[in-house]
Amino acid sequence: MLSFENDYSSTAAPEILKRMQETADEQNPGYGDDDYCKAAAAKIGKYCDDPSVQVVFLTGGTQTNQVVLDAITPPYAGVVAADSGHVAVHEAGAIESTGHKVLTIPAHYGKIRAADLDDFCERFYADANHEHMVAPGSVYISQPTEYGTVYSREELAAIAEVAHSHHMPLFIDGARLGYALTAVSNDNCDETETPDTPDDPAEPTEPTTMATMADIARICDVFTIGGTKCGAMIGEAVVFTKHNLPSHFTTLVKRHGALLAKGWLLGLQFDTLFTDDLYFNLCRHANEEADRIREVLVRKGYNVAFISSTNQIFITVPNATATALQKNVRLGFMEQVDAGHVMLRICTSWATTDAQVDQLIKLL
Amino acid sequence: MLSFENDYSSTAAPEILKRMQETADEQNPGYGDDDYCKAAAAKIGKYCDDPSVQVVFLTGGTQTNQVVLDAITPPYAGVVAADSGHVAVHEAGAIESTGHKVLTIPAHYGKIRAADLDDFCERFYADANHEHMVAPGSVYISQPTEYGTVYSREELAAIAEVAHSHHMPLFIDGARLGYALTAVSNDNCDETETPDTPDDPAEPTEPTTMATMADIARICDVFTIGGTKCGAMIGEAVVFTKHNLPSHFTTLVKRHGALLAKGWLLGLQFDTLFTDDLYFNLCRHANEEADRIREVLVRKGYNVAFISSTNQIFITVPNATATALQKNVRLGFMEQVDAGHVMLRICTSWATTDAQVDQLIKLL
Amino acid sequence: MLSFENDYSSTAAPEILKRMQETADEQNPGYGDDDYCKAAAAKIGKYCDDPSVQVVFLTGGTQTNQVVLDAITPPYAGVVAADSGHVAVHEAGAIESTGHKVLTIPAHYGKIRAADLDDFCERFYADANHEHMVAPGSVYISQPTEYGTVYSREELAAIAEVAHSHHMPLFIDGARLGYALTAVSNDNCDETETPDTPDDPAEPTEPTTMATMADIARICDVFTIGGTKCGAMIGEAVVFTKHNLPSHFTTLVKRHGALLAKGWLLGLQFDTLFTDDLYFNLCRHANEEADRIREVLVRKGYNVAFISSTNQIFITVPNATATALQKNVRLGFMEQVDAGHVMLRICTSWATTDAQVDQLIKLL
Amino acid sequence: MLSFENDYSSTAAPEILKRMQETADEQNPGYGDDDYCKAAAAKIGKYCDDPSVQVVFLTGGTQTNQVVLDAITPPYAGVVAADSGHVAVHEAGAIESTGHKVLTIPAHYGKIRAADLDDFCERFYADANHEHMVAPGSVYISQPTEYGTVYSREELAAIAEVAHSHHMPLFIDGARLGYALTAVSNDNCDETETPDTPDDPAEPTEPTTMATMADIARICDVFTIGGTKCGAMIGEAVVFTKHNLPSHFTTLVKRHGALLAKGWLLGLQFDTLFTDDLYFNLCRHANEEADRIREVLVRKGYNVAFISSTNQIFITVPNATATALQKNVRLGFMEQVDAGHVMLRICTSWATTDAQVDQLIKLL
Repeated sequence: MLSFENDYSSTAAPEILKRMQETADEQNPGYGDDDYCKAAAAKIGKYCDDPSVQVVFLTGGTQTNQVVLDAITPPYAGVVAADSGHVAVHEAGAIESTGHKVLTIPAHYGKIRAADLDDFCERFYADANHEHMVAPGSVYISQPTEYGTVYSREELAAIAEVAHSHHMPLFIDGARLGYALTAVSNDNCDETETPDTPDDPAEPTEPTTMATMADIARICDVFTIGGTKCGAMIGEAVVFTKHNLPSHFTTLVKRHGALLAKGWLLGLQFDTLFTDDLYFNLCRHANEEADRIREVLVRKGYNVAFISSTNQIFITVPNATATALQKNVRLGFMEQVDAGHVMLRICTSWATTDAQVDQLIKLL
Repeated sequence: MLSFENDYSSTAAPEILKRMQETADEQNPGYGDDDYCKAAAAKIGKYCDDPSVQVVFLTGGTQTNQVVLDAITPPYAGVVAADSGHVAVHEAGAIESTGHKVLTIPAHYGKIRAADLDDFCERFYADANHEHMVAPGSVYISQPTEYGTVYSREELAAIAEVAHSHHMPLFIDGARLGYALTAVSNDNCDETETPDTPDDPAEPTEPTTMATMADIARICDVFTIGGTKCGAMIGEAVVFTKHNLPSHFTTLVKRHGALLAKGWLLGLQFDTLFTDDLYFNLCRHANEEADRIREVLVRKGYNVAFISSTNQIFITVPNATATALQKNVRLGFMEQVDAGHVMLRICTSWATTDAQVDQLIKLL
Repeated sequence: MLSFENDYSSTAAPEILKRMQETADEQNPGYGDDDYCKAAAAKIGKYCDDPSVQVVFLTGGTQTNQVVLDAITPPYAGVVAADSGHVAVHEAGAIESTGHKVLTIPAHYGKIRAADLDDFCERFYADANHEHMVAPGSVYISQPTEYGTVYSREELAAIAEVAHSHHMPLFIDGARLGYALTAVSNDNCDETETPDTPDDPAEPTEPTTMATMADIARICDVFTIGGTKCGAMIGEAVVFTKHNLPSHFTTLVKRHGALLAKGWLLGLQFDTLFTDDLYFNLCRHANEEADRIREVLVRKGYNVAFISSTNQIFITVPNATATALQKNVRLGFMEQVDAGHVMLRICTSWATTDAQVDQLIKLL
Repeated sequence: MLSFENDYSSTAAPEILKRMQETADEQNPGYGDDDYCKAAAAKIGKYCDDPSVQVVFLTGGTQTNQVVLDAITPPYAGVVAADSGHVAVHEAGAIESTGHKVLTIPAHYGKIRAADLDDFCERFYADANHEHMVAPGSVYISQPTEYGTVYSREELAAIAEVAHSHHMPLFIDGARLGYALTAVSNDNCDETETPDTPDDPAEPTEPTTMATMADIARICDVFTIGGTKCGAMIGEAVVFTKHNLPSHFTTLVKRHGALLAKGWLLGLQFDTLFTDDLYFNLCRHANEEADRIREVLVRKGYNVAFISSTNQIFITVPNATATALQKNVRLGFMEQVDAGHVMLRICTSWATTDAQVDQLIKLL
């Protein structure tokens, strides 16, 4: 059956499978202490415009968020996140299992605003009882967000500035980073949101700019480059900037059960993804396929929420429409909006073919 | 200086100090395995109308919430609480430090509603992704609430029914239980809140009834009887009903660093408090002193929030009024409501004297 | 350079890589809810002679130990393990990070004895202070052990009987299970150990029997089938017997950051391994290559410790010999035995070739 | 019945009860932010010969060990302790519940040796796999030890030097500190242990010196002054030296459920104990009573183990003797040494009277 259910239902880009086959007769040192990991880290450093970044390769997204946030958040403190953030909602308490509360602030189409973050911290420290409360200790955002929206370079810089002013590192969860890095724009989302609020201090008035990987490396303290959803078989690259690698990080990774014996398999994949822009080409393709679907949806009058130019599309449809669609195509079921309507997610991936999109368009 | 800052600024009721003095030459077995603990448990059982309740004595409130909630909440699950609940806001992450997320639902003057709780659980299990989310595993409420309001017997029964229907134990934090048990009514609060909403399913239409300790024991799965704020020097009695004492509870208490070597000191205090209704008399006195203050406040046109008949009074006053008041009396500072106003708490206790209240009234 | 460093330095058996390539164009449901996982579970059930076993696929060994032991060990209790056990020594505190103490008993060439386990538990419960101590809550053993030795069916049954008599589940870490299942015998080790102790109650006097997977499934409560070290690219199969799957296990796995999005990749690998005895054939080959090396070592008078018939060989050699060897072959460095000697590990794997062994033999 | 069961079976020194009575009408600020805590801290600073020490008051011993060790031990590391140490044996996993492994080294009559500690750390860092192991992160010792023995100033200094050379803070658990500070000597124990081993590098050959509180404050990084077992009703003073107070320590204490609302009660007690040498006088009295018992025991040929000059005496007696004794006096049961003998503990306390000792002596 046709499926636009998610971006992790295909094995891996052909280039990666080929590379695995080619290196099958090798023997490599374990636990990430191998040449592929080193080569991949160096290539990522180039894309970051910063050879000093420290790169560690882990297996899965929730695992990565857990290991990194536990390492960078002080023991007395919590993780500030959007109330729609993956760590707040869909990680089964992985963050709390390490003893850290997730402190939520409002999400606007998945994004937090620097002003809200600042306000949250200011109110916290102004509270006479704040020693009895969980202090904000680190900031988690996702790029793109769980709703496919994208922070601009200016927004990221503003959030980082606020985070740093309150002595918090900024962590960017890039489980789908490639889709954000190759998005054409983030304008639609802002426009939809608050078109006429010139006095909103959180809203930049100048034209916003898409953030590159180098921008992200310069702005935040640690970010991840998702492989699982962006062409790799498995794997997430954790990039510590500003010499932020936590002390004894390998031991911390092991302690979380997250140290892969065959670490070179992760390095090999990221080495491949960051050769000849493969990572970007794979993700751009998914965005373009999503654009084709979006165009049809808008033209046909579908109720499309969270418009962005990444690979996720959220539509609200009558129950009957949903039922009809789902007979022929697997889609993500998001929520029952009201008695008569549901929100569905259409998700393309690096593996989505023109033919699959053509089929879907016929069903819309 | 005059102080109405809180209800834990005085040592202990004279009866308790006298008893400690009288027994000073004794030697008693440690860790709660003594006759005073047994006697106190038996007396509490009588007030519960249920000799089968299992009573354990701990030292402090946050400690008690942490130990009990960790013991009764499954490892994959969280604690449902009001967003104003003590465990959600003012315990510095003590619950999360045991690996459990606090799941919040809206507070109405400090109270949760059975219908909201049911809705939360229904939506949780209806979510296609709920296996990736923290399940509701236990319910935490406080009686009286952090705002001094009181659940009626009907409200408690309704919450318990919903909790049980979703396989969750109901835990009642009675850090100030005595003040609720001796409150004259809980009508004001409800009236203030939603006077004209006959069709609100969460609002009982019949006259509500104050819950006794026997009601509470019958309705919930475990509750605490606060000593620290209700006449004891230190100590919280944990009362497990329905034979709910968790397996190996002594070890769990020890593991949390919460097993007091001189446990008999806790037993001795509760034995004293539950002799000749001392616990109730002490708390009723505080409520009556609070009533005298409330009457003046209302007469003088103060903005009184969260009206109840327990020992806490919340007023919103202009900054200047607050500054003037605080020159002569220590009050709890709650929050800066807006640029010009603050909310203050006036808190009486079992130790509050008529003279102190007279002094305060002169200042109002 | 020639390497006998470990059994996880090669990618995967050719059959697995081929299968991955063949299925590369498919789309599969996430999180283990796919046909490959179902098929693999069914095949494992057949080898267990028990279709009711419940099989879950995870990624790595330490991760698996952490998730499973946390799920089956009561919160007040610890995990009993050999003092040489992987969970006790080489998991960076992964078990303690979940709040459980690892309680160690003596290892005899990596193996624990049922009598020691019984004695440990008897003494624990006889201790007047045992409520202040960490109770034995589950039993961890590895098959083969970290030293390559193998428990006989009788030994496993005896340990299970003791564990069950003290209300503990028995968990068998089978990270290298295939090498134990295809070992020719476990006699050498026992012989070496205590040849003349007829009165040792822990030592079976009848001829011992190699345990099959069906024996293991019948005897223990949960075990793992290691893939990472036995021919798979990554992956460990967790097999719950006796309907022991913990409640909400998927959520617990997710909470530990251990739920792989592309779970079908694990299912696909185990489906392949348990087709046409591939798993057994791969591991038997490694054992046979090890036997060839062992024979030469014994003939040449090397000091071989922990003799077994699995794929790990431990030799104690003078420092100079070690240095000379390591110039030409990567070996595992175990420990500095004394000022003049070191213990090295020679480890074959499913991927070891005849030519590699020939080369090594020339160096010995 | 006569009891020499432990040193925490009496309420509190009369001076403390008197002071509580005298201050019963006061109102004091909560959570340790009061004048009594400040005064007590200042007095402790004087005894430490260091006004810069930072003093925090907690309630119980296990709680204190848990809170402090969790705060000073890095997340990737464990706590090194004697295998007989309280944190290793009798705290029900309180340390592990915070995620830290307890790493044990051999106890010699309750004491660890600097050389053993150094050897442990050297071997750890020499291990090729140490990144996969729990690193030694802090050192825990108790003064006096669980067996009543006392470290000399030289021994403490040597342990601290080793700890610091491996970047670990040294924590001294002084649950019974007063008994060590007022012990006449620590010679017996050393003499018993290794009288003729001049070449043992861990054994000082010069005459050893009893450590004062000032010595302890100068040598270690944090220590506790036990109140519960040394004259107070409840309470342990935590003394951070060298400006070591952990960041946000109040929040960390609260997070562990260990922040006492009526903190001034702890301050008041320690203020009393450190006025006119009360703490020392109370404990010296217990030691002297123990000396009277020891003298009789030695004279009558009892098998006395762990001889020291503090308040605990351990004797090994035939079962029949034990049964006879325990008919008339409550003693601590330590362990069944062999089929015919048990080890009992005779424990005096600050509250032990001459008459009680006379009675006991008659029974011996």
